[in-house]
Amino acid sequence: MLNFEISLPTRMVLGRGVQERAGEFLKKFDATKVLLHYGSDRIKRTGLFDQIAASIAREGISYIELGGVQPNPRLALVREGIALCKREGVDFVLAIGGGSVIDSAKAIAHGTAYDGDVWDFFTYKVPVTKTIGIGTVLTLPAAGSECSMSCVITKEEGWLKRGVNTELNRPLFSLLNPELCTTLPREQVAYGAIDMICHIMERYFTNTPDVQVTDRMAEGVIMAAMEAAKTAYADPTDYEAQAQLMWCSTLAHNNILGVGKEQDWSSHQMEHELSALYDVPHGAGLAVLFPAWMRYVYKHDVRRFAQFANRIFGIVIDPFDLEKTALAGIEALEAFLRGLNLPLKLHELGIGEDRLMEMAQKTKKTNLPAEETVGGFVHLSTQDCYNIFKSAL
Amino acid sequence: MLNFEISLPTRMVLGRGVQERAGEFLKKFDATKVLLHYGSDRIKRTGLFDQIAASIAREGISYIELGGVQPNPRLALVREGIALCKREGVDFVLAIGGGSVIDSAKAIAHGTAYDGDVWDFFTYKVPVTKTIGIGTVLTLPAAGSECSMSCVITKEEGWLKRGVNTELNRPLFSLLNPELCTTLPREQVAYGAIDMICHIMERYFTNTPDVQVTDRMAEGVIMAAMEAAKTAYADPTDYEAQAQLMWCSTLAHNNILGVGKEQDWSSHQMEHELSALYDVPHGAGLAVLFPAWMRYVYKHDVRRFAQFANRIFGIVIDPFDLEKTALAGIEALEAFLRGLNLPLKLHELGIGEDRLMEMAQKTKKTNLPAEETVGGFVHLSTQDCYNIFKSAL
Repeated sequence: MLNFEISLPTRMVLGRGVQERAGEFLKKFDATKVLLHYGSDRIKRTGLFDQIAASIAREGISYIELGGVQPNPRLALVREGIALCKREGVDFVLAIGGGSVIDSAKAIAHGTAYDGDVWDFFTYKVPVTKTIGIGTVLTLPAAGSECSMSCVITKEEGWLKRGVNTELNRPLFSLLNPELCTTLPREQVAYGAIDMICHIMERYFTNTPDVQVTDRMAEGVIMAAMEAAKTAYADPTDYEAQAQLMWCSTLAHNNILGVGKEQDWSSHQMEHELSALYDVPHGAGLAVLFPAWMRYVYKHDVRRFAQFANRIFGIVIDPFDLEKTALAGIEALEAFLRGLNLPLKLHELGIGEDRLMEMAQKTKKTNLPAEETVGGFVHLSTQDCYNIFKSAL
Repeated sequence: MLNFEISLPTRMVLGRGVQERAGEFLKKFDATKVLLHYGSDRIKRTGLFDQIAASIAREGISYIELGGVQPNPRLALVREGIALCKREGVDFVLAIGGGSVIDSAKAIAHGTAYDGDVWDFFTYKVPVTKTIGIGTVLTLPAAGSECSMSCVITKEEGWLKRGVNTELNRPLFSLLNPELCTTLPREQVAYGAIDMICHIMERYFTNTPDVQVTDRMAEGVIMAAMEAAKTAYADPTDYEAQAQLMWCSTLAHNNILGVGKEQDWSSHQMEHELSALYDVPHGAGLAVLFPAWMRYVYKHDVRRFAQFANRIFGIVIDPFDLEKTALAGIEALEAFLRGLNLPLKLHELGIGEDRLMEMAQKTKKTNLPAEETVGGFVHLSTQDCYNIFKSAL
């Protein structure tokens, strides 16, 4: 096990009706003027916006609003939000939505507390050293941004999708009401499930020995997430399955399942380039690329892939043929994804081979700050990235 | 799943040499005068005290010291520490030790920030509303106090062992160096292992349905803790096994494995009375009482005990005889405990039947504030507690 540090200060609140407590938590964290940040007008039609606004008004806190966040959240809107917050003296951003809205809110909060251009953080020109308050009302379990150190923004010019990791990305509080997920379209349930499962697998495939505790916990959360995903995909109105998924989403990416180990993340980096260029759902891109990555790298440590197959899917380990066991595990994962009607090949997303090398080259450059390789489990060259994209055609 | 709230703000730092960072973290948390609180002089003979003192001195922070904490930490020393802290203007208590030292430090910190008698907190006369800074350098993985909301103190008059739960019990930081555990006597490794495993099992046996995520995580940590315990018991110098145990200790009791569910805790409450009266090691008492409790209550939900047997010990579930499966799981747990040379019966601790009813009656009274029953999974009467004690003779 590697030396590590972790704290999870975000106040996580999960249960029925918890969005009604937004005002209570904003007051607790000394908010005086709040930006309510969201995506489409759907939250107004469902009444969610009004419930939250009313709970804030009850505490005598004022607010303004900015909607319009798109999947793969855009820098232009972040800049608009920063200008608005500075002009209006906002000291707290409350995200109402999924990972895209939350990431947009994080970037707005950091930019509001900074005199320069917010993109500086995403090019690692300057570190994030201060921010204003950030809270969330989660509506889509997937990205884990409600408790994570991550924030990923897309710059429209050149379609660059870049992330910044900092402790300041952890929200002060997150309100998780599974009831809000029961009206999600089935494909959103599926995209969310594969995203959280990939967040765990990116941490699971490691070269660090002696990580039994995190291995066992990760396996447990993957199994629970898969079961809940099947149930919620079959019937999104199932409150209990949605509750499991919401909690898995948080656990998958707050790094409690990643401490003390080298992690990989090459599939996520490749997918960032894919969705930046083609604007496909992140979950759809991951469903294609993660199994492709697994098939490309499994021989690097066939024992770990055999353990994955055995502990997640109950596949009996053949000690005479670990490779067969490993491949059976990858096939079982693909069968799970197919069961959620997720794509397994790029052509299912309408993507051909014309821009594969461009994405491979951008994947390498994304890996800031200034590391030479992509991936911690297996270091991938540009050619390796190209090969994985190509194998997924 | 029940509605829940959780945050884990304690900065957990695990790795080689981390005690050398005590000064850095004390400075980060604005300590100006620190009480170094510990048990025996062993930490002076090993050089640990001097390493920590030197790191504090490097930051220009002053300190005083108070040793002498005993297992089942005593109220008298807590009161002495509070008087000392008030007299000397101490604003931070750094515990160097295991759960007893940390609990004593927590009580001192709360009492220092309070004008009345510290025992008021433990009789639920007043809630803990403020405290001074608390940090830890952990030397014994067991109680999980390094990240938990718990604090348990024993009042010598009447040998009352009482706990108080509050968010203010979570330390600001905890430094976990597994190297410090490699000189532990083997029986301490065993006592620590059963304590952390029981902390998980007290949460695992629940009547709350739809808690798959926490079930799976709990099973994972129990399995990893058992494997690490066997290794570390056979060879306490095994750094990696001690690292697993240190991390399990924290996870077992910071409530990440207990959210959203009704918990039990009757075995712990009964053991508190046992160790308060007979001053036996907490781990030894738990090794006797937890299996006795299991055998007394398993019929309440034989399916959950069968799941435990299957997932923890790989026992094949007999769908025609779940009871047989359940009992096989309890037997497997007992075999694990025997493998660590832990006692399974009270007579092995030199305890006879003369004071069983006294302990049963005190167990009921312990269950403050003012609840009528002990235990969340199965509500136990005084007679039930007596029966369990008696079955363990």
